[in-house]
Amino acid sequence: MPFQPTDYDPYDFANRRHIGPSPEEMAEMLAAVGADSLDALIAETVPENLRQAVPLDWAPLAEGELLTRMRAVAGRNKVLHSLIGQGYYGTITPPAIQRNILENPAWYTAYTPYQPEIAQGRLEALLNFQTMITDLTGLEIANASLLDEGTAAAEAMAMAQRAARSRAGAFFVDANCHPQTIAVVQTRARPLGIEVIVAPVDELDAAAVFGALFQYPGTDGALRDFTPEMEALHENKALGIVAADLLALLLLKEPGAMGADIAVGSAQRFGVPMGYGGPHAAYMACRDALKRTMPGRIVGVSVDARGNKAYRLALQTREQHIRREKATSNVCTAQALLAVMASFYAVFHGPRGLRAIAERVHGMTVRLTEGLRAGGFEVAPKHFFDTITVEAGPLQGAILRAARAEGINLRPVGKTRIGISVDETCVPDTIERVWRAFGLKEEFGTSGGVALPEELLRSSDYLTHPIFHLNRAEAEMMRYMRRLADRDLALDRAMIPLGSCTMKLNAAVEMMPITWPEFGQLHPFVPADQAKGYAEMLGDLSARLCEITGYDAMSLQPNSGASGEYAGLMTIAAFHRANGEDRDICLIPISAHGTNPASASMAGMKVVVVKSAANGDIDLDDFRAKAEAAGNKLAACMITYPSTHGVFEDTVREVCTITHQHGGQVYLDGANLNAMVGLAKPGELGSDVSHLNLHKTFCIPHGGGGPGMGPIGVKAHLEPFLPGHPATGGGEGPVSAAPYGSASILPISWAYVLLMGGAGLTQATKVAILSANYIASRLKGAYGVLFTGKQGRVAHECILDTRPFADAGVQVDDIAKRLIDSGFHAPTMSWPVAGTLMVEPTESETKAELDRFIDAMLSIRAEIAAVEAGEIAYEDSPLKHAPHTVEDLVADWERKYPREQGCFPPGSFRVDKYWPPVGRVDNVFGDRNLICTCPPVEDYADAAE
Amino acid sequence: MPFQPTDYDPYDFANRRHIGPSPEEMAEMLAAVGADSLDALIAETVPENLRQAVPLDWAPLAEGELLTRMRAVAGRNKVLHSLIGQGYYGTITPPAIQRNILENPAWYTAYTPYQPEIAQGRLEALLNFQTMITDLTGLEIANASLLDEGTAAAEAMAMAQRAARSRAGAFFVDANCHPQTIAVVQTRARPLGIEVIVAPVDELDAAAVFGALFQYPGTDGALRDFTPEMEALHENKALGIVAADLLALLLLKEPGAMGADIAVGSAQRFGVPMGYGGPHAAYMACRDALKRTMPGRIVGVSVDARGNKAYRLALQTREQHIRREKATSNVCTAQALLAVMASFYAVFHGPRGLRAIAERVHGMTVRLTEGLRAGGFEVAPKHFFDTITVEAGPLQGAILRAARAEGINLRPVGKTRIGISVDETCVPDTIERVWRAFGLKEEFGTSGGVALPEELLRSSDYLTHPIFHLNRAEAEMMRYMRRLADRDLALDRAMIPLGSCTMKLNAAVEMMPITWPEFGQLHPFVPADQAKGYAEMLGDLSARLCEITGYDAMSLQPNSGASGEYAGLMTIAAFHRANGEDRDICLIPISAHGTNPASASMAGMKVVVVKSAANGDIDLDDFRAKAEAAGNKLAACMITYPSTHGVFEDTVREVCTITHQHGGQVYLDGANLNAMVGLAKPGELGSDVSHLNLHKTFCIPHGGGGPGMGPIGVKAHLEPFLPGHPATGGGEGPVSAAPYGSASILPISWAYVLLMGGAGLTQATKVAILSANYIASRLKGAYGVLFTGKQGRVAHECILDTRPFADAGVQVDDIAKRLIDSGFHAPTMSWPVAGTLMVEPTESETKAELDRFIDAMLSIRAEIAAVEAGEIAYEDSPLKHAPHTVEDLVADWERKYPREQGCFPPGSFRVDKYWPPVGRVDNVFGDRNLICTCPPVEDYADAAE
Repeated sequence: MPFQPTDYDPYDFANRRHIGPSPEEMAEMLAAVGADSLDALIAETVPENLRQAVPLDWAPLAEGELLTRMRAVAGRNKVLHSLIGQGYYGTITPPAIQRNILENPAWYTAYTPYQPEIAQGRLEALLNFQTMITDLTGLEIANASLLDEGTAAAEAMAMAQRAARSRAGAFFVDANCHPQTIAVVQTRARPLGIEVIVAPVDELDAAAVFGALFQYPGTDGALRDFTPEMEALHENKALGIVAADLLALLLLKEPGAMGADIAVGSAQRFGVPMGYGGPHAAYMACRDALKRTMPGRIVGVSVDARGNKAYRLALQTREQHIRREKATSNVCTAQALLAVMASFYAVFHGPRGLRAIAERVHGMTVRLTEGLRAGGFEVAPKHFFDTITVEAGPLQGAILRAARAEGINLRPVGKTRIGISVDETCVPDTIERVWRAFGLKEEFGTSGGVALPEELLRSSDYLTHPIFHLNRAEAEMMRYMRRLADRDLALDRAMIPLGSCTMKLNAAVEMMPITWPEFGQLHPFVPADQAKGYAEMLGDLSARLCEITGYDAMSLQPNSGASGEYAGLMTIAAFHRANGEDRDICLIPISAHGTNPASASMAGMKVVVVKSAANGDIDLDDFRAKAEAAGNKLAACMITYPSTHGVFEDTVREVCTITHQHGGQVYLDGANLNAMVGLAKPGELGSDVSHLNLHKTFCIPHGGGGPGMGPIGVKAHLEPFLPGHPATGGGEGPVSAAPYGSASILPISWAYVLLMGGAGLTQATKVAILSANYIASRLKGAYGVLFTGKQGRVAHECILDTRPFADAGVQVDDIAKRLIDSGFHAPTMSWPVAGTLMVEPTESETKAELDRFIDAMLSIRAEIAAVEAGEIAYEDSPLKHAPHTVEDLVADWERKYPREQGCFPPGSFRVDKYWPPVGRVDNVFGDRNLICTCPPVEDYADAAE
Repeated sequence: MPFQPTDYDPYDFANRRHIGPSPEEMAEMLAAVGADSLDALIAETVPENLRQAVPLDWAPLAEGELLTRMRAVAGRNKVLHSLIGQGYYGTITPPAIQRNILENPAWYTAYTPYQPEIAQGRLEALLNFQTMITDLTGLEIANASLLDEGTAAAEAMAMAQRAARSRAGAFFVDANCHPQTIAVVQTRARPLGIEVIVAPVDELDAAAVFGALFQYPGTDGALRDFTPEMEALHENKALGIVAADLLALLLLKEPGAMGADIAVGSAQRFGVPMGYGGPHAAYMACRDALKRTMPGRIVGVSVDARGNKAYRLALQTREQHIRREKATSNVCTAQALLAVMASFYAVFHGPRGLRAIAERVHGMTVRLTEGLRAGGFEVAPKHFFDTITVEAGPLQGAILRAARAEGINLRPVGKTRIGISVDETCVPDTIERVWRAFGLKEEFGTSGGVALPEELLRSSDYLTHPIFHLNRAEAEMMRYMRRLADRDLALDRAMIPLGSCTMKLNAAVEMMPITWPEFGQLHPFVPADQAKGYAEMLGDLSARLCEITGYDAMSLQPNSGASGEYAGLMTIAAFHRANGEDRDICLIPISAHGTNPASASMAGMKVVVVKSAANGDIDLDDFRAKAEAAGNKLAACMITYPSTHGVFEDTVREVCTITHQHGGQVYLDGANLNAMVGLAKPGELGSDVSHLNLHKTFCIPHGGGGPGMGPIGVKAHLEPFLPGHPATGGGEGPVSAAPYGSASILPISWAYVLLMGGAGLTQATKVAILSANYIASRLKGAYGVLFTGKQGRVAHECILDTRPFADAGVQVDDIAKRLIDSGFHAPTMSWPVAGTLMVEPTESETKAELDRFIDAMLSIRAEIAAVEAGEIAYEDSPLKHAPHTVEDLVADWERKYPREQGCFPPGSFRVDKYWPPVGRVDNVFGDRNLICTCPPVEDYADAAE
């Protein structure tokens, strides 16, 4: 028999690993949707005149090649021990947490816990985080994380403005705050019309401000009791905010005890690598009275249908939903995965361990200081926790260089001083190397001294809840992490067809580099020559994102989609300002993402809402009329493409033209970019700026609610107005604490674009559209499909109408919960249209998984029909009782349908069935009985009696 | 309030992470066992006169320090691209497999699947492996892996000797076999009295041998059809064995088609890193008629109590159990984790992908060869797959050096030739670098030529089963791996209290280095200067193991406990031989590990069994009498300490003395070393040699049935007789294919001893003893505890007597299965005494977990009592129906006990309940209807109808 080589490429990542349907499956799917070919379907879906002329054309890498390239790039980063401080510190990530959380798809592929029944594990971990934060800050309520300390401080300022009864227009910022915090606050204040007063604390005029922010310890290391300032602020109906270091709070008087109203800070040094700036979880805590003005998500405790304890997100209606175009916060994505890591760090160490770490850090700082003083150096401040500032005079540069030669980065402060922050990774040898850098040859012993002021020593207890007193054996810890993971349903078990969220494959190879020390252990403010690998990666990623989007420049700073929106609009505002124009009107269609109006408001714009036509498209007449009305006040329009209705509107160019005609700029929301990559470029459609959700289209996993990244692409005329940063200079004010946002997760997106190649990315887009149309075609007999293009096609998602079932008593919620019985996360509920489900399958799902979902949906439709036909009452139906749990099976079965039907509906696996740990969660009970810290211990008893 | 520092060390790995019980819990446990202190308990347990005088005293490392040290050591290994071949090849481990299998505790902490109900996931993966092997080799039945290709060949020789009807005494070995294979076969043959004839295939005299081994492709790359040799062998009632490369078999005629009776080989290049020699899975396949003589474990298909498909180990009664002291195989541990990886590699790529990889490798080899020939080099053989041999004349050394300068290792063959093996990690640039090393500057194109002989092209199909035709999208693959993992109960969810197996914590930090490229990607035969990190690690680990055991030298070659036993006895035999003594009697107590007599037999010794006294100890009078009877024929005794009965016998020194008096050597089985580390040293008790199960005492995870490591320690007089290796020279014949066995998992054990420090290791031993005594104390009212020391204490394990329940019809199996309902793996069943359970909790379990187990056992005892009292018939009891599954709950419940009792017995988690995927497995059915490859596809249907 002659040798017949195959033409099959086993290393073809795009078509073999990332894209779900095989060629044979695609043929079947095309037949079902009634298209002759994939290209024919795309031609019917994406208007021809919008298609990009030149295809994306870089060659793909195989997985092995990618890892080789990544290792080479990583090798160009130099890992020194950074004692730079300024909000970022070396920390030891417990290996069990790295392996079982950060590198475990059960945790990192999960979605935000909006469906609480399938998210009890991460909700518990986040509740632990909140409990830790409230305990350490001495305040009553904490959220489940914010993006970074800088933006948390800015959020606190906005929150103070909303909540304070003072009518003063200024906000005071302690000059001893971290420079990047001050800069982010200033950026945020400007469009809100807030005057920011940066001055030493002693110069605070409490009557002149609605709030004040203090750093604790100060960026120079100083410790100060802010109780007098809090009292003065309160006398003037203003609010006091403390940006506090969590490790310091283990030894020092907590903000709550000083009378602070709000505390913010970073949980980075609780086991989360610095990662060249992020991602890490920032925290925010406040007094109970302020809780309804607090941004971000809050986990609370409620009960399920059987009255058993169940967690869920509390107070879900938040600033941007309530006030929309008047909002002063647009927080959406948080840093859930990192908050989970930090909470496990606290569970691992417990209060004794954490305190011991803090003491050790402090003790080494004392020893370091004593040696420097003995060597003749002047060291400030008198009292400190972990950070000191040394006067080096003309030796500053020489000492910094000598330290680098010793493998250590110190912080230059001004022209003559040097800042040093000790962290838990320091050992005695670290201190000795610093001494050598200062030219001190002797060894100085340990005096055992303490440099904490007596009056600032902490007197209150913390982390008293039993969860922080588990046995700390790794066997127990590992099992606790596994149990929580098993309670949740994430992408590693099933499709998550959330419309607008693009829950696609996060491939293992894409995740590998991010836990390499060369990416993880860089401080964001290291000298550039230590971050050449990062520079190469950032440059190449930016270039490719520009090619994909048709923009000319990219800012990788915004660390969430909402932050990207805000940054993009701020860029537009700066552009107009530079042109001497006074434009502040922003046109936004009614169907926009919830964050859009809030972002516009935060950027100082006035929102004018544009109507939708009957088919869901932008009402072009209304748009034109409102643009004309705005005239020379028109700053921008914000549109989403394809639209939030899941359709490629062919009027997009006209919208852009109208906007430009009136001098406005076009902001095209990139949330739906997964329907465009390789087919059309926002920058070629007439848009001036877009943000890209790297955690949607570019494979950064959702992490159970973050991290995300929202870089913005702009046309050349806007490039000078992109966010800058104190550490890198240039541009406008920063929108994130770190120059490149959550830099350490960018290798994920870079890996994705390198692995896929231009053709692979384009094919992925086509298959995403095919999959959505396949679902729409298969389900349209059972459910109404809202909004299709001119030729009856949807884009990459489709909206199923469940409103007709309301007559029978069946709500969209019932369908969502019933899907859990089939082992699925529900599609997006009631957005952008109430009473609908928006389904986005993405390109990564196989046809078998799509069919499993379709089977489940058809079966649910049949159950609804039975209710409609009066065969079973809604109250008696499996729809009402969904999701079904093991508790239902163990109890006497008194339902009007068989156990089999209840527990194993079509779509459900048999042997590998996912059982939700709780029944349907009672949201009303939870909001009425708000508990946002760990409940009493008896609720944890889960083992044998 | 003054500052009060704590004395708590959060980085204390030994006491904070590894050892389970906290100090407070230990106090409670001591109270329960009635001991005043831990040291008091140890004094009552370990005879004072056996205790070591000098404590182990090295300082512990914290986790962060360990990783720093490991990175430094890893950095001293140089990762070149090795084209050395000789059985080890570069391969691409799919990142999804690395992350979700190799780095996932759900897979690596599992035990050998002896309890099939809680092992269905890995049983399915191993069945996939067997199916892959039978398909590729063209033989009818395969086992679930052996240790390495060399030992697999030796096992095949022994199997041929057992099975062949030829009475010839010689065994033929193709001179073109890999050198290490020949050496291992020769080592094994000698004590069995087999003459090994190593010669070119053309010199085979089939009438003179009982079997013959051929390499395919040959170590020099040659391809040859062995059909004529097989026919000649069969005519002479001899058996033919082919050691075949799996990648080659994708293109080439398979051994079965040549008429081979047995095929062996390595599955390393199916995605398993070379790891400086191991671990990898070797395979063995044979004709159906030979299956009952095949060594190793075989997975088979059966049914559960409801008649549903269920996997389990088939034909469990194997060579060493049946023939014990006449056995010629002692295989116990396999390479399950690596076999699982290889099987997933095949599932990932499927037949098309695998074939494409083989074609690509071959195509590059052809191109390489054409270039070399064009450059004037003489290249052999004419036909090849991936390996060629180049005549370099006096340039050999210069070319090898030039290749290394190009980052490539080639293989020196003789004094003038160079071997080159192409692998799937090669790219065109690799070939060009080789050319440059040969001094060829030109570029040669790709002719597309083929160097496979037409008559050897494969004509049969393979991997036709649907499992190898899953959709290859990573989303699907990841979920398949997760589903299988979830079916199994491993250490990441619960204690596995298996007596004699020491299932302790495998800490995440210990596992991290093994997947670093610097440990994983080294070929075992690289030049020493590329493996300096390995040398440092091997040296330091050996030194510490010597200090722990009191031996003077250590061989890290044996890659399983059984291999260590064999190696130790071979060392003793060589010692006697060198002394000109003819000693061949080995005294073994009746209670010995099952592998002991088999190992002695394999080492050419005659086993004389020594009785036990009534208390379970060695019957000293019988021992003395048999030693005297053996006289100057006494070669050795094999004892286990503490004994397999879980007791520190105080006669151990006397046993050693008697043995020495008669000129014998003492082999002390190290299986129970976890009860001795830091308290007593085998080498100080009078023992001359021991093997150490690094996968028990020293934290290498069990991997679901391997890998393991069984290094041996010896006193100085035996050191010259330790195993050598062709690659390193010296010593006796090798017992493993690689010089340091499964070298790449040794960092796990090294990390463990570095992290723990001497005091930590000692404390761990004490706590292991405390935990066993705690269980014995708590359960002794309910179950008889067999065998205790003079003061009523057990060592690190205890034996519970379940024989009294037989009158009520309750068997030990019922208890084991009922424990599954409580979420536990059963203790060791019916060993060393039939009808008992041997419980070994290890030091890593918390008191809460021990209590959970105790609760479960007490509840089971109460259920037995109910049967005994006639309250419920055995046939109706939950004991009989255990384990309970979701299927039981969904079906109509017609049991005589409530659902609650059946499914949630004490010990069971409620929310986090583990549900076995099948009910009790029917072993008899399975062995009667033996199926050892993947069952028909309809059995896989698990999704929605």
